Amino acid sequence: MSRSINLAVIPGDGIGQEVVAEGLKVLSAVLPQDVKLETKEYDFGAKRYHATGETLTDADLDALKQHDAILLGAIGDPAVPSGVLERGFLLKLRFAFDHHVNLRPSKLLPGVATPLAGEPQIDFVVVREGTEGPYTGNGGTIRKGTEHEVATEVSVNTAFGVERVVRDAFARAQARPRKKLTLVHKNNVLTFAGHLWTNIFNKVAEEFPEVTTDYIHVDAATIYLVTDPARFDVIVTDNLFGDIITDLAAAVSGGIGVAASGNINPAGEFPSMFEPVHGSAPDIAGQGKADPSATVLSVALLLRHLGYEAEAARIEDAVSADLADRTGKPARSTSEIGDALSVRVAG
Amino acid sequence: MSRSINLAVIPGDGIGQEVVAEGLKVLSAVLPQDVKLETKEYDFGAKRYHATGETLTDADLDALKQHDAILLGAIGDPAVPSGVLERGFLLKLRFAFDHHVNLRPSKLLPGVATPLAGEPQIDFVVVREGTEGPYTGNGGTIRKGTEHEVATEVSVNTAFGVERVVRDAFARAQARPRKKLTLVHKNNVLTFAGHLWTNIFNKVAEEFPEVTTDYIHVDAATIYLVTDPARFDVIVTDNLFGDIITDLAAAVSGGIGVAASGNINPAGEFPSMFEPVHGSAPDIAGQGKADPSATVLSVALLLRHLGYEAEAARIEDAVSADLADRTGKPARSTSEIGDALSVRVAG
Ligand SMILES: CC(C)[C@H](C(=O)O)[C@@H](O)C(=O)O
Ligand SMILES: CC(C)[C@H](C(=O)O)[C@@H](O)C(=O)O
Repeated sequence: MSRSINLAVIPGDGIGQEVVAEGLKVLSAVLPQDVKLETKEYDFGAKRYHATGETLTDADLDALKQHDAILLGAIGDPAVPSGVLERGFLLKLRFAFDHHVNLRPSKLLPGVATPLAGEPQIDFVVVREGTEGPYTGNGGTIRKGTEHEVATEVSVNTAFGVERVVRDAFARAQARPRKKLTLVHKNNVLTFAGHLWTNIFNKVAEEFPEVTTDYIHVDAATIYLVTDPARFDVIVTDNLFGDIITDLAAAVSGGIGVAASGNINPAGEFPSMFEPVHGSAPDIAGQGKADPSATVLSVALLLRHLGYEAEAARIEDAVSADLADRTGKPARSTSEIGDALSVRVAG
Repeated sequence: MSRSINLAVIPGDGIGQEVVAEGLKVLSAVLPQDVKLETKEYDFGAKRYHATGETLTDADLDALKQHDAILLGAIGDPAVPSGVLERGFLLKLRFAFDHHVNLRPSKLLPGVATPLAGEPQIDFVVVREGTEGPYTGNGGTIRKGTEHEVATEVSVNTAFGVERVVRDAFARAQARPRKKLTLVHKNNVLTFAGHLWTNIFNKVAEEFPEVTTDYIHVDAATIYLVTDPARFDVIVTDNLFGDIITDLAAAVSGGIGVAASGNINPAGEFPSMFEPVHGSAPDIAGQGKADPSATVLSVALLLRHLGYEAEAARIEDAVSADLADRTGKPARSTSEIGDALSVRVAG
């Protein structure tokens, strides 16, 4: 385990600034004294784009590459045309650093409100493929703006790309008490990609005889996520399906205020990036209203990725205790929550 | 209004047989005496596929074309490889008959259980594009089964195809009290298709100044469907996103036991097809346990499409009353529910 962490910090836009500050506060509080934390802040996002027209240059990528990991707040601004920052920054970074394991845990913590009736048990992890599928940007447009326009989007799926993420998901399922892995796809309609995913899933399953497997279509998965979320332990799925079901998963397990994610390059060839699932929320930016818990939990994922398991667990316990404690109390500001969590993880 | 209905009936597989029988029972009961109902049953589905290897031939399409409308139960069987009946029958029919408006209403009726907490107000309609997007079957595989396999799926979106369904959705929104239309897409990532959809949506909006519009990403839409479904009135979306969100919509508004759908060719060049959103449910087939309400409500959509508005409304009221009446009563069989609904619509 490295006893120093050289962290790239990208606060980004809107509430990104506020929540990242709290994430760093908790990170400093949880780290043992002998671990040297170095952070360097980068100004990516809407402001830089407006000023320079740049989203993420090759030089930026070279600079980011020097870090052990990246903590991101949120990128996105209503004044920037849709897609510019998403494709030009966020997806560019995920692809450039080969973040093929997009890890999104969902756990309904005690005392946390859910839109579901009853007392659902929710504790699963989605392993979303991060570098293929309909996210590659392949496709195009002809006769743009005319009545004869045709626009295509190409989902690209490779045995290489699918097998590595499926194997990663099996390993994660194997390490969990229930040892269950569900493949989510739409293999009855997207038969080319579906066949590839299903075949590789079944092949890799033979290497993990202790893992129970099943398959469900993405449409049915959304039903189970609201009627029987307890059926899920680990889910592996494609980039787009993963995008959709993890927002739903976040919604049912306490909201995107507490949903963390890791964009992971498991072999460590490039730094992995950790970010809350929520966006930049311009409507509440600068008001100290944002819940930093999702960012703080993303810091826990970051620590776990770097080998600081005990510290990661301490953060998760602190967030859990803090959430359980909220009922009936007045709402706190972003930094008050960060302060409270810092006290908990230190103590 | 034609005073005769020449209906193609496709019971299909599993519970399809049972629910279609009840749909027809209610249809006969609701129709005025002077309307001549002719039905012809077709044996499409797993049984025919097993016997002949056929799913839907050109001759079949010619025969179906003669009818005013089609009532379908469900197609699908675990013994048939995934995709064979879906692509070979269901999607083939939707494409051959240019069913470009896939209409899926979601209404949480009084007394009906929902997995959501509280008392959500749910009453919206999804207009799902039915003939484009990633459903076209474009794409392919190279080096199949090897470690170098690449599988692609191509989403095809045309100005022609998008504009007609967007215009249909605007007209439906215009005719509803709230007059609100939401475009659901993922235009920040699928920028080629997203740009086309968004541009056309904004252009057609100018023709409907009374309709309030907004846009949300498909991932965020799944959140709103569980946290604030009342925000939706009419939704228009792409084929795949529509598939996913309508299963979720069905789940929150009473389950797929009551979710109806119409595959509509608005101009009537081809017969439209009406079917429950649920599948063939082989696990409960033949046991008289299936709820025929979704099929009966699909019959209502069918009648409305053919101009029998009063009869459609009578069926919807009957289902609504029947559902409100269930609490605390013992479960009834498929045919008992059909009988009860027949009495209600007649009376
Ligand atoms: C902002 C967008 C590009 C992104 C995605 O679609 O992956 C977001 O929705 C997410 O889930 O991280
Ligand atoms: C069975 C399948 C091809 C179909 C679809 O994906 O459209 C179904 O899920 C539906 O929603 O009608």
